[in-house]
Amino acid sequence: MQDHLSRTFSALADPTRRAMLARLSDGEANVSDLAQPFLKDMSLPAVTKHLKVLENAGLVIKTRNAQWRPCRLNAEPLAEATDWIEQHRIAWEAQLDRLGNYLQTRTRGGRHARKK
Amino acid sequence: MQDHLSRTFSALADPTRRAMLARLSDGEANVSDLAQPFLKDMSLPAVTKHLKVLENAGLVIKTRNAQWRPCRLNAEPLAEATDWIEQHRIAWEAQLDRLGNYLQTRTRGGRHARKK
Repeated sequence: MQDHLSRTFSALADPTRRAMLARLSDGEANVSDLAQPFLKDMSLPAVTKHLKVLENAGLVIKTRNAQWRPCRLNAEPLAEATDWIEQHRIAWEAQLDRLGNYLQTRTRGGRHARKK
Repeated sequence: MQDHLSRTFSALADPTRRAMLARLSDGEANVSDLAQPFLKDMSLPAVTKHLKVLENAGLVIKTRNAQWRPCRLNAEPLAEATDWIEQHRIAWEAQLDRLGNYLQTRTRGGRHARKK
């Protein structure tokens, strides 16, 4: 059983699924409209499977509305994924800055020492 | 062969690999120091395999420095991953705002209509 964040990243690790999310970021879409662009390259069950992965990760919510079944994006797991990445990217950049400052201080110290 | 972005997300889709990246976001680490916290739960080959996935995704760069082999984080693929997510999250939120405004206008329009 994958943890929540791993499920999100795993769902994002496929170009078809990212294309589906990109489509849904422009607004709700019916399952068949969402599937349509991919049917020239893969079977309907393959497309449905990708959609199921997105649903299981909580990235897509499928609702029922009389005759049609609109899908909509759920941006919450996306926000969590960005938070995780940015937290560590910022920590890394802060660490690089500290290292840069330290090296600069040492270089300056070295110059002063040589001048003496 | 996975595309670049899929490789990044795939590498992030595992708690051990995320813990390794979290450790490296605090600064470089030797392979053995990086592996150490995970060896109570898994074998060294298993840990090495996770590190290899991170290297293949370009998230970790292993260098050689005389006796030791420091690993460092490469934040570039992380930035690309955030860019992809945020682009679509922002598009989705903008779409929700437009929908909200439209509904508000309609509601106001409805009220005016009823008042007449």
